[in-house]
Amino acid sequence: MPALSSSSPLRALGLRTDGDLARIEILDQTLLPGTEAWCEASTPARMVEHIRLLRVRGAPMIGVCAALSLAASARAGSSTDELRAQARMLRLARPTAVNLAGAIDRLMAAVEAQGPGAAAELARRLFHEERLRCDQMAAHGAPLLPLGARVLTHCNTGALATPGVGTALGVLKRAFQEGRLSSVWVDETRPLLQGARLTTWELQQAGIPHRLICEATAASVMADRQVDAIVVGADRIAANGDIANKIGTYALAVLAWAHGLPFYVVAPHSTVDPDCPDGGSIPIEERGPEELRGPLHGAPGAPADTPVYNPAFDRTPARLVSAWILDTGVLRQDAVQRGALRRAGPPDGGPALG
Amino acid sequence: MPALSSSSPLRALGLRTDGDLARIEILDQTLLPGTEAWCEASTPARMVEHIRLLRVRGAPMIGVCAALSLAASARAGSSTDELRAQARMLRLARPTAVNLAGAIDRLMAAVEAQGPGAAAELARRLFHEERLRCDQMAAHGAPLLPLGARVLTHCNTGALATPGVGTALGVLKRAFQEGRLSSVWVDETRPLLQGARLTTWELQQAGIPHRLICEATAASVMADRQVDAIVVGADRIAANGDIANKIGTYALAVLAWAHGLPFYVVAPHSTVDPDCPDGGSIPIEERGPEELRGPLHGAPGAPADTPVYNPAFDRTPARLVSAWILDTGVLRQDAVQRGALRRAGPPDGGPALG
Repeated sequence: MPALSSSSPLRALGLRTDGDLARIEILDQTLLPGTEAWCEASTPARMVEHIRLLRVRGAPMIGVCAALSLAASARAGSSTDELRAQARMLRLARPTAVNLAGAIDRLMAAVEAQGPGAAAELARRLFHEERLRCDQMAAHGAPLLPLGARVLTHCNTGALATPGVGTALGVLKRAFQEGRLSSVWVDETRPLLQGARLTTWELQQAGIPHRLICEATAASVMADRQVDAIVVGADRIAANGDIANKIGTYALAVLAWAHGLPFYVVAPHSTVDPDCPDGGSIPIEERGPEELRGPLHGAPGAPADTPVYNPAFDRTPARLVSAWILDTGVLRQDAVQRGALRRAGPPDGGPALG
Repeated sequence: MPALSSSSPLRALGLRTDGDLARIEILDQTLLPGTEAWCEASTPARMVEHIRLLRVRGAPMIGVCAALSLAASARAGSSTDELRAQARMLRLARPTAVNLAGAIDRLMAAVEAQGPGAAAELARRLFHEERLRCDQMAAHGAPLLPLGARVLTHCNTGALATPGVGTALGVLKRAFQEGRLSSVWVDETRPLLQGARLTTWELQQAGIPHRLICEATAASVMADRQVDAIVVGADRIAANGDIANKIGTYALAVLAWAHGLPFYVVAPHSTVDPDCPDGGSIPIEERGPEELRGPLHGAPGAPADTPVYNPAFDRTPARLVSAWILDTGVLRQDAVQRGALRRAGPPDGGPALG
C-alpha cells in the first residue's frame, strides 16, 4: 500500500503532479506516440478542455484528473461555492464514463462536509485507490487466461487510461509477466486510433509481442483460430451487467460469442453504476463528423459535407460477457444475475488508504 | 444493347479510352474525392502499376482494364509471344479477384486462336459485357429490398469498381430510383477508406441519402434496428458459395446473422470461380504495414516499427449468405447447395454482344 502524505508525489504514465497539487500536468495523448508533450492542467477549466479534447482519457484516469483539478482549485483558495460550480462544469466534460461523475461526487461530498481543505486528501486517496485497483484487477484477471494465450483487445486501457497499470491492459501485462500471455492483437480503434497509437506504444515499452489490425480484421483472426480470448475495459457497467465501452466493443462481443471465445470486461468497481439499471440507460457520447471525414496518409478523406454518425461508445448486453473482472473479484453470469453489481463495493470506494 | 464498332468510345466513371484503344486512361482513385487526376494506362506495364497501387480497383474493373491494356499493346504491334509475357505480368498484379485472371485468359484465348488482331474486339466485348451485367444485377437485386430499405454497405462497388453502375452499389442505385431505398450506411472501410472516399462520393452524385460510419459502428446500428439489409460485392465466389471480399465483410456477415438481417452478395458471374471449391482455396492478398501505421488527421500514427497484419480481403462462408445476386439471376441457399455456382454461365462469358 503506497505511503500517503501531503507531499507525496503522484506520478503515472499520463499524469504527474507534485505532492501539494500546486501543479498538475497531463501527457497530451492526442500527440502520442510521436510527441511527448506535457500540458499544464492545474485548474478545472483547463482540465475540462483537456478531457473534452481527449488529451487525457480513460474512464478511471479522467475521474482522478477531475478530482485533482478541484483539489488544486481548493488549494488556490476557491470557496465551496466556486468548487460546486467547477464540479458541475467538470461533470459535463464527457457523459459516458461514470467514473468522472463518481470521483467528483465523492470529492464534493468531502468538501460539503469538511470544507475546501478536505479536497486535497480526498483527491490523493482517489488516485491511490484507482492505482491499487489496477493491481487487484490484474491479479484477479491474469489467471483466467490459458497458458500461451493470444488475446485480442480494443482501444487503450493501460497506464495512459488509469493512474496504475491499467484495466484490460493491466491484466495482459500481468499475464505476460506470469508467462501466460504469448501475444496481443491490437484493434486500431477508429476513429481516433487509441489502439494503433497508444496500446501499441505501451505494449512495445512492456516488451509484449503484438500485431496491429483494423477492426475489420478481428473477425478473421477469430475464424482462423488465432485468438483465445477478448479482453476489454469499460466506461460504465450498469446494475444488470450491461456495459458501455469504446465503439466497436459490442461487435467484438457478438463475434466472440459466434466463435465460442471468452469475452472479458475489466474495470474497477468505480466504473459500476448501481443506479443505472441497464445499458439502455447509459448516455452515449456522439462526437463530431471531422473525426471520420479527415484525410489519411496524405490522401484526401471523405467529401467535405458527408453526413456522419460518430458515437464514441456502444452498449454490450450482459449476456455476451463471460466475466466481469473487478478489483473486488471476478463476477460470472450467475453472480451478476443474482444482483452482485447492485452492491459492487461501498459507495465511498472501499477501505480508507490514508 | 450498346452498339459496338471498332471506333465506339468506351467511357465509364473511372475508365476512358478512344474507340481504337490507342489511349487508355484511368481515374486515380487514391486521390479521390479531392482530386480528379486521369493517368495514362495504355501499356500493360503501366496498367500493372496502376492496379497494384489501387489507382484503379474493383474486381470487374481491373479485369476489363487488364484486357484493354493488352489490346492496346496488340494494336501497338506486340506479337503473341510479347502479349503472353504481358498477360503473365498482369495476372500477378493482384491475386484475390478472379475477374483479373478470367478476363486475361479469355483475351489470350482469342489471341492464341486468331492472333493479336483479335485482342481489340475481345477487350471491347469484355467491357460491354461487364457494363450490361451491372444493369442485370441491379434489375435482379433491387426487388429483394423492402420498401423504405435502409441498407448497410462496405467498400466501393459502384461505377468506380466496374465499367457500369456497379455491383452492390448498382443494386442500391436502382432500388433508389424505384423508390425502395431510403438511405445507406457507408462503412468507411479501413485501411484505405474506399467507403469514406469513393462510395460517399458516388452516393452524393446520385443524390442518395447516406451516413458514413466506422466499421466499429456497424454492429450498433444493426442492434438499434436502423438496418434492413447488408449488401456487398465480391472479389471471388467459390463453387460452394463461399466468397472473398474486402476485409470486414466476414464480420458484417456474422453480425447480420446474429441480428436476423439478410446478407446479400452482388457480383457478375465473371466473379464466380467454378474451379475454386471453397473459400479456403481463395488466395488472400496481404498488403504492407504502412497502410495501418500512417498518420491520421495530422496526428501521428502507430510507432514506426509496429508489427501489422493487413489482409486486404476475408472469406465469408456460404451459410451466412442470404442470396447471391448475379447478372444471370438470384441464387438462394438451396440452388447453391445443389451446385448452381459450379455451372454459373458459359466459360466464354455469355452470348456474344458484338
